[in-house]
Amino acid sequence: MALRLTIEDLPDLARGAAFLGTGGGGNPYVGRLMVESAMQETGRVLELLDLADVPDDALLIPTAMMGAPTCIVEKLPEGTEAAQSLRRLEAHLGKTAFATMPIEAGGVNSMIPLVVALRLGIPVIDADGMGRAFPELFHETFHIYGVSGTPMVLTNDHGDQALIDTHDNFMMEWLARGLTIRMGGVAYIAEYPMSGEVAKRASVAGTIGLGLKIGVALREAHAQHRDPFAALIETLSATAYSPAGVIFSGKIVEVFRRTSEGFAKGTVKIAELDTGSGHEPELLEIEFQNENLIARTTDRVLATVPDLICVLDAETAEPITTEELRYGQRVKVMTVRVPEIMRTPEALKVWGPGHFGFSELYRPYGVEP
Amino acid sequence: MALRLTIEDLPDLARGAAFLGTGGGGNPYVGRLMVESAMQETGRVLELLDLADVPDDALLIPTAMMGAPTCIVEKLPEGTEAAQSLRRLEAHLGKTAFATMPIEAGGVNSMIPLVVALRLGIPVIDADGMGRAFPELFHETFHIYGVSGTPMVLTNDHGDQALIDTHDNFMMEWLARGLTIRMGGVAYIAEYPMSGEVAKRASVAGTIGLGLKIGVALREAHAQHRDPFAALIETLSATAYSPAGVIFSGKIVEVFRRTSEGFAKGTVKIAELDTGSGHEPELLEIEFQNENLIARTTDRVLATVPDLICVLDAETAEPITTEELRYGQRVKVMTVRVPEIMRTPEALKVWGPGHFGFSELYRPYGVEP
Repeated sequence: MALRLTIEDLPDLARGAAFLGTGGGGNPYVGRLMVESAMQETGRVLELLDLADVPDDALLIPTAMMGAPTCIVEKLPEGTEAAQSLRRLEAHLGKTAFATMPIEAGGVNSMIPLVVALRLGIPVIDADGMGRAFPELFHETFHIYGVSGTPMVLTNDHGDQALIDTHDNFMMEWLARGLTIRMGGVAYIAEYPMSGEVAKRASVAGTIGLGLKIGVALREAHAQHRDPFAALIETLSATAYSPAGVIFSGKIVEVFRRTSEGFAKGTVKIAELDTGSGHEPELLEIEFQNENLIARTTDRVLATVPDLICVLDAETAEPITTEELRYGQRVKVMTVRVPEIMRTPEALKVWGPGHFGFSELYRPYGVEP
Repeated sequence: MALRLTIEDLPDLARGAAFLGTGGGGNPYVGRLMVESAMQETGRVLELLDLADVPDDALLIPTAMMGAPTCIVEKLPEGTEAAQSLRRLEAHLGKTAFATMPIEAGGVNSMIPLVVALRLGIPVIDADGMGRAFPELFHETFHIYGVSGTPMVLTNDHGDQALIDTHDNFMMEWLARGLTIRMGGVAYIAEYPMSGEVAKRASVAGTIGLGLKIGVALREAHAQHRDPFAALIETLSATAYSPAGVIFSGKIVEVFRRTSEGFAKGTVKIAELDTGSGHEPELLEIEFQNENLIARTTDRVLATVPDLICVLDAETAEPITTEELRYGQRVKVMTVRVPEIMRTPEALKVWGPGHFGFSELYRPYGVEP
C-alpha cells in the first residue's frame, strides 16, 4: 500500500519522530523545513511505500544525516547533500535505487529520506533501521541482522565527498565519525545498500507511519481537550510498540550534562510532586547518551534501552529532548516496549543496557519479573 | 631513458632518500625491505622511466604512505596496500595507469612506489612532487602547479578503504589525515592522478636517480676512504640541487622535541667544538617539524625551507633524522639549494619559511644578499 504524504502531514510526523527520538535524534523541525522546500521546489508527490510491497530484487539505499544535530541549525544544508550521497553510491554499485528509507525513525533522520525521495523522484519505504533513535551507525537492525553498512558515502555542504569500504560496521562508524567531524560536524550519508528481500527481514517496519500516528494522536487530543497521555497509550496499543505507560510524574530537580567523545552524556533527576501523603517524595534518575538509556528510582529499574524512555511535558505531552531539559519543568515519563525484532538476543547484544555500560539486564516493559 | 633498478641499488637509494628527507620522511629501511620482498616474490624487473619519456596522454598515479612512519615499524604492512589504492583509483577513473611515481623523494616514500610498480608490473617515473620530504599532502609541486589531489584513495592493512573527493587540496589533507589516524596511524595512498603532460610541468624531475647518486657517492667515498662531505658536494654540483655546502660543525648540546597535532616539532642546538682560538663557541639552532625547517646562529639565518637542511654524522656523513638526534652527537650540517621549480613565488607561498610561521624570508643558499 502506498500512502501520499502531504505538507499537512509534516508537523504530525515531526512530533511523532520527536517522541520516537526518546530524548535524542535531533529536533525534526529543521528536517521538516527541508522537506517543505523540497515539496515546493520539485512539485513532486511524496510516496510512502509499505515494506511488504517492495520487490525482493529492488535496490534500497537508506539515507540520513550524521553528526551533531545542533550544527544543522547553525548551518542550513542545501538539501541536496543526502541525494548526492545516494547518487554516488548508485554510480559505485552500477545500479539504480528503487527507493530510499530512513536508518533512524526518531528525530531529524525521519525527515532526511523524504527530502531525498522528493529531490530524486523516488518513493520512500515505511521502515527504518533503528525503530527509534540511537547514537551510532552500528545501532541498526541492518547491522544486527548481517547487512554490511559499506560501501557508504558521506557528503557535506561544500560538496566534499567520501566513499568508504570497511572490513566491518564498527570500522565504518569509526571512519565515518572522524570524517563527519572534519567535514564540519555534519555529513549526509547513504549506507547499508540492500535488496528489498534483505530489508524485509532486517528492518523495523512501519515506523514512519507510526510517527505520523503518534503526531496525529497528540494533535487531536489537544484539539478535543482530551488527555494526551491516554491518547498516546491507546494509539500505541494498536501497534507493535506496546504496551506503553506513564512510569513517573514530577518536577525536574537536577540536570547534569557534558559533551564527551561527541556525545551529549548526562543525567536528569525528577522528583515526585508533593502528594500530600506525608511520605518522602520519590526520585527518578534517567541516564542519557544523546538518547535516554535507563530510568531508575533509588530501589527499582523502571525502564532500559531498547524500550523507549520519553520525557514529556506534563500538560501537553510534547516530547522534551535531552538538550531541552531544564530545572523546574513539570514532566511525565513514558516508556514503550519496542517490537520483537528490536529485542532479540542479537539485538540486545548491540543496544541492550550492557552495551552502554550498565549492569542491569533488559526487562521488556509490561512483563512481570 | 629507462634504468633498471636491482636489489643492489636499494641500499644506495635508501641512504640518498634519507639525505633528501632533511631530517624527516621516515626511515627508508622498512620501505627497502618491502621492495626487496616484492622483487623476490614477483621476480619482476623494476623499470625507472625518465619523465621526458612518458607519453603526454598517459595516466600517472602517484603512490605513498601517509601517517606516522614509526607505526610501520611496529606493524609491518602487507606490501600490497598502496597497489590496492592505485587499482581502486583506476577503477573509479575507468582508466589504467601507465605508471606510478613518488609524491615524496625523501624518506620511506621513495620506496613505496617501487613496491607498487613491482606488484603491478608497471614502471615507476623518475620524478616526484616534493623534491625532498615535507609533512603535508599539499606540500607538493602537483598542488602548487594546479593539479587536484582528488579523487584520492586510502587503504590500510585491514583492507579498509576510502575514496575521497574534495573541493580543494587543503580539505583533502584534512580528511585524509583524519582517516589515516582512525585507520591505525598509517594508510597507503594513491592521489593526484594526472597525465604525463601535466606531470612534466608539475613535478620535480630525476629525484629517484638523484637519491641513488647521493647514496653511491657516500658508499664509494667510504670504500675509498675519501671525505664523504666533499664527495656529496661534488656529486650534487652536477645536478639541479646545487650549490651544496657544510654550514656548521659541532656537537649536539640540546634536543627539544614534542609531538603536537601529529607532528614531531622541536629544536636542536649544536655548539661549535672548541677551536682553540679562545673565542666563545658559536651556537646553531635548527627548528624542525618532522623535517628541518630553519637553521640560525644568534645573529644570522644560515638556511631555511625549502632548501635542504641535513644533519649528518661528522665522520661518516650518514643522515640523522630528527627522531635520532641525541645529546653529544658530533655532526655537520649541510644545506643544499633546491631546483628552480621548488622556489618560485607560487612554491614559496606553499612551503616557504612564512608558511611554517617564520618571519624570515627565503634566501636561496649560495646567493649573496
